[in-house]
Amino acid sequence: MSGRCAACKNQRRRCPSDCIFSPYFPANDPERFARVHRIYGGSNVGKMLQQIPSYLREQAANSLYFEAQCRIQDPVYGCAGIISKLYEQINSTEIALAHVQTQIACQKLQVPQAKAESNFNVFPAQNSSTAEFQWESQVPWFN
Amino acid sequence: MSGRCAACKNQRRRCPSDCIFSPYFPANDPERFARVHRIYGGSNVGKMLQQIPSYLREQAANSLYFEAQCRIQDPVYGCAGIISKLYEQINSTEIALAHVQTQIACQKLQVPQAKAESNFNVFPAQNSSTAEFQWESQVPWFN
Repeated sequence: MSGRCAACKNQRRRCPSDCIFSPYFPANDPERFARVHRIYGGSNVGKMLQQIPSYLREQAANSLYFEAQCRIQDPVYGCAGIISKLYEQINSTEIALAHVQTQIACQKLQVPQAKAESNFNVFPAQNSSTAEFQWESQVPWFN
Repeated sequence: MSGRCAACKNQRRRCPSDCIFSPYFPANDPERFARVHRIYGGSNVGKMLQQIPSYLREQAANSLYFEAQCRIQDPVYGCAGIISKLYEQINSTEIALAHVQTQIACQKLQVPQAKAESNFNVFPAQNSSTAEFQWESQVPWFN
């Protein structure tokens, strides 16, 4: 019984040799299981891991742990809050990029930059590389 | 009983007037509750909503639904997979930005760009705006 994993210890049960939790929730890190258990419930985590090929289960357990940590730190937005911040960062970096690209074009053409930016759309939405993520349709509550 | 919310219909119980799910999981969208139920379990969703001030519960229900959808679409990485892609996008946009900034500097100094990039570190990690997210420490499995 001393060889039980963190999940089986938490649930006070025997840890079978083929335990679905054992490789990803070792006994020496009880907090790791406690966090996913708090957000998803132990049995949901077990079900999710069962449905994934064994060679991908470690990645899945790690991403579930990461998302559980995010949700504990930010109970309102969780992981989605990080996505929102990264999206804002992409936007501002793309604006900065478009700005310096305009600067280069102006230097080449010897046109004052303020005039060029007022005459041309320097941030064409169609060419934005953020378009591929379809943020607006995926995250409607940020609109 | 016909006025029950999607959560109470799913759980086959009476929907009380102060139901925690009712404002966020309407009866006309049973799939919305079914998805968060599948990933978190209905009682965990109820507990999480209870712990949040009522004016923030709609945002929390939306972000839980978003994350549940991500996990159903990508059972291995879920929402964390999107964060990884956004992070890659930020990296490539920052590299492009540094590249054109070097171009500008070269034009001003009349130095060939290839020479300038080999002589100077154009991507200083300390100045990177992605540093603030501490991605490496938060998402250890991408290292």
